[in-house]
Amino acid sequence: MTVQKSNISIPDAIDLLTRAFAANDVSQDNAVSVATALVLAEAEGQVGHGFSRVSDYIAQAKTGKIQGFAIPKIAHDAPSAITIDAGCGFAYPALDLAIQEGTERAADTGIASMSIMNSHHCGALSLQVEKIAQAGMIGIMMANAPAAIAPWGSKRAMFGTNPIAFSAPRPNEAPLVIDLSLSVVARGKVMNAKKTGQPIPEGWALDKDGNPTTDPVAALEGTMNPIGGAKGTALALMVEILSATLSGANYSTEMSSYFTADGPSPASGQFFLALKPQNSAHFADRLEVLLNDIADTPGARLPGTRRITAREAAHKNGLLVPTDYITQAQELAQG
Amino acid sequence: MTVQKSNISIPDAIDLLTRAFAANDVSQDNAVSVATALVLAEAEGQVGHGFSRVSDYIAQAKTGKIQGFAIPKIAHDAPSAITIDAGCGFAYPALDLAIQEGTERAADTGIASMSIMNSHHCGALSLQVEKIAQAGMIGIMMANAPAAIAPWGSKRAMFGTNPIAFSAPRPNEAPLVIDLSLSVVARGKVMNAKKTGQPIPEGWALDKDGNPTTDPVAALEGTMNPIGGAKGTALALMVEILSATLSGANYSTEMSSYFTADGPSPASGQFFLALKPQNSAHFADRLEVLLNDIADTPGARLPGTRRITAREAAHKNGLLVPTDYITQAQELAQG
Repeated sequence: MTVQKSNISIPDAIDLLTRAFAANDVSQDNAVSVATALVLAEAEGQVGHGFSRVSDYIAQAKTGKIQGFAIPKIAHDAPSAITIDAGCGFAYPALDLAIQEGTERAADTGIASMSIMNSHHCGALSLQVEKIAQAGMIGIMMANAPAAIAPWGSKRAMFGTNPIAFSAPRPNEAPLVIDLSLSVVARGKVMNAKKTGQPIPEGWALDKDGNPTTDPVAALEGTMNPIGGAKGTALALMVEILSATLSGANYSTEMSSYFTADGPSPASGQFFLALKPQNSAHFADRLEVLLNDIADTPGARLPGTRRITAREAAHKNGLLVPTDYITQAQELAQG
Repeated sequence: MTVQKSNISIPDAIDLLTRAFAANDVSQDNAVSVATALVLAEAEGQVGHGFSRVSDYIAQAKTGKIQGFAIPKIAHDAPSAITIDAGCGFAYPALDLAIQEGTERAADTGIASMSIMNSHHCGALSLQVEKIAQAGMIGIMMANAPAAIAPWGSKRAMFGTNPIAFSAPRPNEAPLVIDLSLSVVARGKVMNAKKTGQPIPEGWALDKDGNPTTDPVAALEGTMNPIGGAKGTALALMVEILSATLSGANYSTEMSSYFTADGPSPASGQFFLALKPQNSAHFADRLEVLLNDIADTPGARLPGTRRITAREAAHKNGLLVPTDYITQAQELAQG
C-alpha cells in the first residue's frame, strides 16, 4: 500500500500547524513553538517526531492532558543551574526557555544545567542541542520517556529508551550533532515489522519473559534491548536520574502515554547542559582536526550526516508529507 | 599456574606504595595521591588499576615521561568551569584538585565542570566520581585513552575505550556509582584469552581488516567492538571531545602508551561535572524510590554492588596481592 503524499514548504507547514494548534486550546506562543519543532523534525527525516504527532497532541490539548496555555517558568534558580516547570504543557516552550536562559548563564559562568519537570514528549533532541551549538557552546540533552527497557537481567520495563544527544559548534559547518536512544533500535521499527508481518532480527527485543525473540508481536509485549546489555541499562539509569530525579519529574514507570488523550499529564523530564569552550578558537581548530580525521578514514562516517542531507533537501524542495496529515491539519485549523 | 599472593592491609599498602613512589622521582604529595588511588582501586577489585601499575608508573617517573614533581594548576578559570593543567605529571593529583575546586564552585553556582589536560592514566573512574557524591552532589567523569575503538564501519582505532562514570549521593547508603567503558569488554579480557589460548566470543573485537574475530591474537592486532555499534562510537566521540578537545589534551590517536617508559607524556584528558541537586531532601527521597524499585525487581541488579562488596571485604580482611608486587614495591621503596 502506497501512502499518498503532498509537497509543502517548511514555512507553509509551520504556518499550517501553528493555526491548527492555536485553533484547539493552545496559546498562540505555544502553537508556534510546537509547530516549529514538529516541522523541523519532519525536515530532518525524523517522521516519528513530526506531522504524525499532530492529532494526538491536539486530542490531549482538548482534554487538558496537555495544558495548551501553560507558561513555563523557572522553579529553582542558582547562577549556573535552573529548574523549569513546564506546567504540564507541551515540552517545546519549556525547551525554548531552557536553551535561552541556559546559554545566557553559561556565557557568564562557563556552564549551565537546565532541568525540566512536568513536561511531555520532547521530539527530536538533535534540534534542541543544535541550538546550543549555534550559540557557540557544547550542548548535551537527555530525556526520560514511558518505560520500554528492562534493567539488565530482568523482564520489567523500567526505563524509557532514554536518549542522549550532544552537539559541538563548528564555525564553518553545520554543528556536529549526535542523537541516540539507548535501545538497540527504535520501537517504531518493531511496530513496522508487525505491520508487514516480518520477523525482527535477534538482538532487538525481549519477550515478556525476558527471552530474546524474533517475533514482533512478542517483542511489543516485552521490552526493547538496551545497547551493550548491562552497560546500556546503567546509562539509562543515569539518564533517568538526570532527567527525572533531579528535576522532580515522573519516572518512566510512573508516566502516562504520550499518545492517548486520557489520564493525567505524563509529567516527564528533560535535562540540558550548555558548556562554553574556554578557548573557543583553539577548540574550533582542534575539533576540525578530529572531525576531518574521522571523515578521511575509509568506512567511517560523521554522526548526523543523513540528518543534514535530509534537511537541506527539505529547505530546497519542501517536505513530502502524507496527504492525510495535511488535510487533517487544515480541518483542525478551522477549529 | 597459581600466582602466590600475600595479605596486606589497606593502610599498610598505601604507606608502602607512597614510600615506593617518593623514593623514585615523585614528590611526597604526589606519591600519597597516586598510592591512595592505586590501593583503593585494588580494594574495589579493579586490579588493572592497582598494584599492577606500580612498576610501569615508576619507570615513567624515572625517565621523566611522567613528571613526578608536577603541581597541577588552574589554567583557565570561569566561575563554574575550570581547566586544570596536570603538567605532564600523574593524573591523580590533578583529579584531586579538580574535585576539590569543582565541588566548592558547584556549591555556590549549582554546577561546575572541570577539564584536565596534560594528564596520564586516570585509573578507576568509580573512585573519583564517588568523592563528588560524598560531597552531596551528582558526579560525572569521562576520560580518553590510547586508541582502541574504530569509528563504526572503519578498521582504524581512533578512540580509547573512553569510559563514562556517574555517581549520585544516597544519605544512608554508599553512593550509587556507574562506571563503564564504551567497548563491549575490556581489552584485558582479550589479553587473558591470548595467555590461556582460549578463543574469544564473537562480538568482542574486530581483526585488523575490520571483520569479527574469535581469535584473541587477531583481536589484539585489530580493534575493540563498541557497545551498540555506531551508537557506541558516537558516544566515544562525545567523550573524546569533552575530555580532549575541550581541555586541550591529546587525542586518543596522538597519545603515547600508558605502559612504556619512552617517548613524550601521553598528555591525555579528563572531564568532570559536579552538580548540586536543587532540593536535596526531595532528590534523596525520590532516588531511593527509584533504586529500591530496581533492587526489588527480580533479576535486576543495581550497578556497583560487586565493587562495594569487594571494598568492604578489603577493609575488613586486607588485600590479597601477588607477592611479587609487594616484594617489588619494598625494593623500590629503598630507592
